[in-house]
Amino acid sequence: MIKVAINGYGTIGKRVADAVAAQPDMEVIGVSKTSVSAEAYIAKERGFPLYIADIEKRESFEKAGIPVAGDVEEMIKKADIVVDATPGGVGAKNRPIYELYKKKAIFQGGEDADVAEISFNAHANYKEAIGKQSARVVSCNTTGLVRVIHALDQAFGVEKVRAVMVRRGGDPNDIKRGPIDAIVLNPVTIPSHHGPDVRTVLPHINIVTLAMIVPTTFMHMHTVQADLKKETTRDAVLEVFRSHNRIGLVTKATKITSNAQLREYTQDLGRPRTDLWENGVFEDSVSVLDGKEFYCFQAIHQEADVIPENIDAIRALMGTVNDPDESIRMTNEALGFVAI
Amino acid sequence: MIKVAINGYGTIGKRVADAVAAQPDMEVIGVSKTSVSAEAYIAKERGFPLYIADIEKRESFEKAGIPVAGDVEEMIKKADIVVDATPGGVGAKNRPIYELYKKKAIFQGGEDADVAEISFNAHANYKEAIGKQSARVVSCNTTGLVRVIHALDQAFGVEKVRAVMVRRGGDPNDIKRGPIDAIVLNPVTIPSHHGPDVRTVLPHINIVTLAMIVPTTFMHMHTVQADLKKETTRDAVLEVFRSHNRIGLVTKATKITSNAQLREYTQDLGRPRTDLWENGVFEDSVSVLDGKEFYCFQAIHQEADVIPENIDAIRALMGTVNDPDESIRMTNEALGFVAI
Amino acid sequence: MIKVAINGYGTIGKRVADAVAAQPDMEVIGVSKTSVSAEAYIAKERGFPLYIADIEKRESFEKAGIPVAGDVEEMIKKADIVVDATPGGVGAKNRPIYELYKKKAIFQGGEDADVAEISFNAHANYKEAIGKQSARVVSCNTTGLVRVIHALDQAFGVEKVRAVMVRRGGDPNDIKRGPIDAIVLNPVTIPSHHGPDVRTVLPHINIVTLAMIVPTTFMHMHTVQADLKKETTRDAVLEVFRSHNRIGLVTKATKITSNAQLREYTQDLGRPRTDLWENGVFEDSVSVLDGKEFYCFQAIHQEADVIPENIDAIRALMGTVNDPDESIRMTNEALGFVAI
Amino acid sequence: MIKVAINGYGTIGKRVADAVAAQPDMEVIGVSKTSVSAEAYIAKERGFPLYIADIEKRESFEKAGIPVAGDVEEMIKKADIVVDATPGGVGAKNRPIYELYKKKAIFQGGEDADVAEISFNAHANYKEAIGKQSARVVSCNTTGLVRVIHALDQAFGVEKVRAVMVRRGGDPNDIKRGPIDAIVLNPVTIPSHHGPDVRTVLPHINIVTLAMIVPTTFMHMHTVQADLKKETTRDAVLEVFRSHNRIGLVTKATKITSNAQLREYTQDLGRPRTDLWENGVFEDSVSVLDGKEFYCFQAIHQEADVIPENIDAIRALMGTVNDPDESIRMTNEALGFVAI
Repeated sequence: MIKVAINGYGTIGKRVADAVAAQPDMEVIGVSKTSVSAEAYIAKERGFPLYIADIEKRESFEKAGIPVAGDVEEMIKKADIVVDATPGGVGAKNRPIYELYKKKAIFQGGEDADVAEISFNAHANYKEAIGKQSARVVSCNTTGLVRVIHALDQAFGVEKVRAVMVRRGGDPNDIKRGPIDAIVLNPVTIPSHHGPDVRTVLPHINIVTLAMIVPTTFMHMHTVQADLKKETTRDAVLEVFRSHNRIGLVTKATKITSNAQLREYTQDLGRPRTDLWENGVFEDSVSVLDGKEFYCFQAIHQEADVIPENIDAIRALMGTVNDPDESIRMTNEALGFVAI
Repeated sequence: MIKVAINGYGTIGKRVADAVAAQPDMEVIGVSKTSVSAEAYIAKERGFPLYIADIEKRESFEKAGIPVAGDVEEMIKKADIVVDATPGGVGAKNRPIYELYKKKAIFQGGEDADVAEISFNAHANYKEAIGKQSARVVSCNTTGLVRVIHALDQAFGVEKVRAVMVRRGGDPNDIKRGPIDAIVLNPVTIPSHHGPDVRTVLPHINIVTLAMIVPTTFMHMHTVQADLKKETTRDAVLEVFRSHNRIGLVTKATKITSNAQLREYTQDLGRPRTDLWENGVFEDSVSVLDGKEFYCFQAIHQEADVIPENIDAIRALMGTVNDPDESIRMTNEALGFVAI
Repeated sequence: MIKVAINGYGTIGKRVADAVAAQPDMEVIGVSKTSVSAEAYIAKERGFPLYIADIEKRESFEKAGIPVAGDVEEMIKKADIVVDATPGGVGAKNRPIYELYKKKAIFQGGEDADVAEISFNAHANYKEAIGKQSARVVSCNTTGLVRVIHALDQAFGVEKVRAVMVRRGGDPNDIKRGPIDAIVLNPVTIPSHHGPDVRTVLPHINIVTLAMIVPTTFMHMHTVQADLKKETTRDAVLEVFRSHNRIGLVTKATKITSNAQLREYTQDLGRPRTDLWENGVFEDSVSVLDGKEFYCFQAIHQEADVIPENIDAIRALMGTVNDPDESIRMTNEALGFVAI
Repeated sequence: MIKVAINGYGTIGKRVADAVAAQPDMEVIGVSKTSVSAEAYIAKERGFPLYIADIEKRESFEKAGIPVAGDVEEMIKKADIVVDATPGGVGAKNRPIYELYKKKAIFQGGEDADVAEISFNAHANYKEAIGKQSARVVSCNTTGLVRVIHALDQAFGVEKVRAVMVRRGGDPNDIKRGPIDAIVLNPVTIPSHHGPDVRTVLPHINIVTLAMIVPTTFMHMHTVQADLKKETTRDAVLEVFRSHNRIGLVTKATKITSNAQLREYTQDLGRPRTDLWENGVFEDSVSVLDGKEFYCFQAIHQEADVIPENIDAIRALMGTVNDPDESIRMTNEALGFVAI
């Protein structure tokens, strides 16, 4: 059993913790929190040992009925590997402590690429990550782009990609961030940082990305356009997507035409926290014009799509599973992927 | 086992179906749908026999891989009781068919009060509903108001109630309804219809309500002010709420100050479809001024709070359980209520 | 003086009326309304003779203090030309009456292209419209696309255009339309109808468009990508845009990065109804990659950008001004265009 | 001519500047800005001398084509009175410099009450402010409440007020603030700070307020309930409101039922920046139950309702007009109030 510590029990951390707990070859040895909150109660309810950043606050937790297992340093010492799910930029500040205790570490996409030895995506470069001391799971948007681009590239070769990302303004429980009634260019200049970020995983891809922020809370929506090297057909592309185990096709018969309805569907399916771990590619949007010009819309759940990638990254770094397909299969099965 | 048919498998119907299936003394003998959709796939996934309004459409369902058990009339004939969860106003049109087959029927709050023999709330008037042929479970907002007013009235006597309802514009999966950036008076005139609707269950209560619609999708927010007959204290009121099994107190320690964060919490708790079946009364808001003037904020989940009431109404109409507390306890336990 | 009737005094009609009134060579001889409303009071306040669709309603108008000049048919008879600004699809139903009285007519982009003899844009095809009996001013989005594509095509030749339109869900005063928290594919299939609509004005352009609807109320946001025939530079493109009198450059120094801030700016400038008649091209977004690949973001004010086009269409149909540049200059000057 | 400096040329400051410039007895001798922005261009366009906080930045302004008149200290020295329209809390930090140069100063409602000698509302306490060295114009919400409560109190006597404020999340041009899809209790505890703030102007009023924040951008919506001392009728209350020159009645005939439609109306009326300087009381909502229980809905434009109060406060502090009605009349006339 791989002993996993999750440093930062928020939007990503609490999902990683549940995903780790669901795997047959891993266990959660601790999660961390900085102050008493609804999520601290959830950690207790799940039975995860709770470590806190500042041990002086122990009393405030205990007064609230939440037992404290120790401080974060103690948690790190007990772990084989740490998943750092702290807010963007904090991961880099935490790196020295992981190094001090010679612990392997996984960082999230909010960190710069140089925080870790490799920027990771399970389908694209699992094997390169095997045995490394640290990995950065690329951001939700980059993960979503890499999955579809890598799949197209393997099947048909990709000459050039142009993607427009329409991003949610804040997560569903974020009551501070806007905008309320605006479309914000993010940034105004072209390209956005997502293109270069895709190249940290797929360095040979020629890609231009543009991004906007809109007043919604769940799932980004991408338009992806790719010039393919080989001629192909819509059916051939659909077949590639259907056989990909982290791309889900939103079928025409469901009559789903938005992220909101897709979320209702994953909620009805009983997915934990309504999570869409896959890319939600809209079947009806998949188009091939003139044999080589690919288009589609895809929904990317910003809270969820990187979760299975974190699990695979654990196995790659620990070197316990050397076949990417085997790890991906194990992860998916444990999470309970059902065709969307 | 009470044989329950659910006519209309949408926002309310799909939740009632799952709730019925979870009860030890009931079973779902069928659900109905008018056309192929994501929800039709969910019915299939859950294993509920699917009946359709227009049997001519059987082929379109079967082509989509969804088996059809028959038409709605067949479903009704097989049932002991029908829960009508069709859109507001359609229930009244369906009544004759339930009467034709002499089936007991439960309607939702979107219907006028005269659709049924009684307007129902489990805590307020379960006993009066026993053995009746039909009942109307009052709307989400009215249910939320009745619970808190009835509890206060039982404990302290209620002289007068003033409530302001800030309503969500559309459900999370509704992509048509707005507003996008407006506060809409609903209606401009005072009082709104909610006050009179409360009186269909609690006829002796003096109540004035005002309502607005805002651009949010989950949970209404109410301010409730009541002049009490007996002097009391904040602690005494909190005790009444704590001991009420369909009022949940959102504690200060959770740091939750909005419906959005409350929803994240119910989602983290693993509630099916993120449902908040209880009134979400904000503990810190509960106030008693000058001994007799009560105030609080409460969040009401428009998709969920009437679900347990539908279950209790089934037992009351069928006359299988005569003690309201017993039915409420059974319902809550089967749903898996956990203190929020 | 050209006698102009405006049939339909709503979002577009009231703006056209003010624009007509501001021109030296035109006058508003009447506007029409179907029922008493805030806009009817505005018509009165502006001093426009008000005609009503159903003369039976005269009393309800007069009771509200709004004088009625007659019915719509009388208005049409008095006009040289009618601008039909009724809701989408109604224009086609109104066409026979304009034909009956042999009146020239201008329709809006909500109508099908075959409603009129020509689909119109002042810079692209003014001369072809001269003397015609009817014209359709293409929709806000199409007008915005045509302006920038035509300008690029004249200067550098356009090989191919790809545009993604992020559309506002409803107008600022629309309290019914959503979505509230969703990104809606509109449609899911690719391309959207905007590409073909651009070709009603610029038939030789190869264009693929994709569209989404988001919860905002003012201005659509477009990403426009074009493969150019001639090599060029960013500076050369900026020069083309700067010299175009219906494209405004949103400069970097303003620090404006969204439609919301752009609107605040036009509001501060004192523009009537905060109108942005020009394309709002973000200067910092204008990019030319590898000499031939053009990108930009542009904001398109859905209520306003077609207004000057309607004015020019009046002159073209009436045949009073034969030089497009002269008409455009007159229109802009009368409206009081100030560089944004 | 009173020489007025406006320190802080943002949402409030730019409106105060235009309002001052419109008065016959005042002139704008300068406005201030900290960095180059769209608003700095507007100051230039209006011809207001622009002073900057940090004179080291002069070059960056001049490079952007915006002339700089000097630093803020120079501006203050030239003024008879300073309107401080800096962000909440900054006003208190600016006070010493106004005192140093013995300049009268007006602060905004974002400051604590003790920032100035008096908390000001023109109808309620103009005379008390005459000749004072400093005044705080109370916040938009408090101003809106004071106007209606004071009017009712003068006419009928007010026993008790209960108000619920549904507040906009951010201003129209604010792209950072949310919430996007939440109703936030602000605060959870009851009462909110607005009740005590009303008492800084009307100390004898017994008032309880509750506040929530919703995802809208323009105008707060209030429900106001008051127990009156004298029995009265709806018509008598309407008469009081009709004769009040800073309360506007939104009539039934306009069919306006929301803040969004009210804003469209003020925009159509040609109000500068779409400003609603008055309370927008919905005529149809004005109710008197049982002779003594008053209710209404009112819309309060957060950017605008304090503007005329700032103008009156200037005259009161300067002591140039001793009759409140005379000042209010002058202010309204210069702004061009038209009955809404």
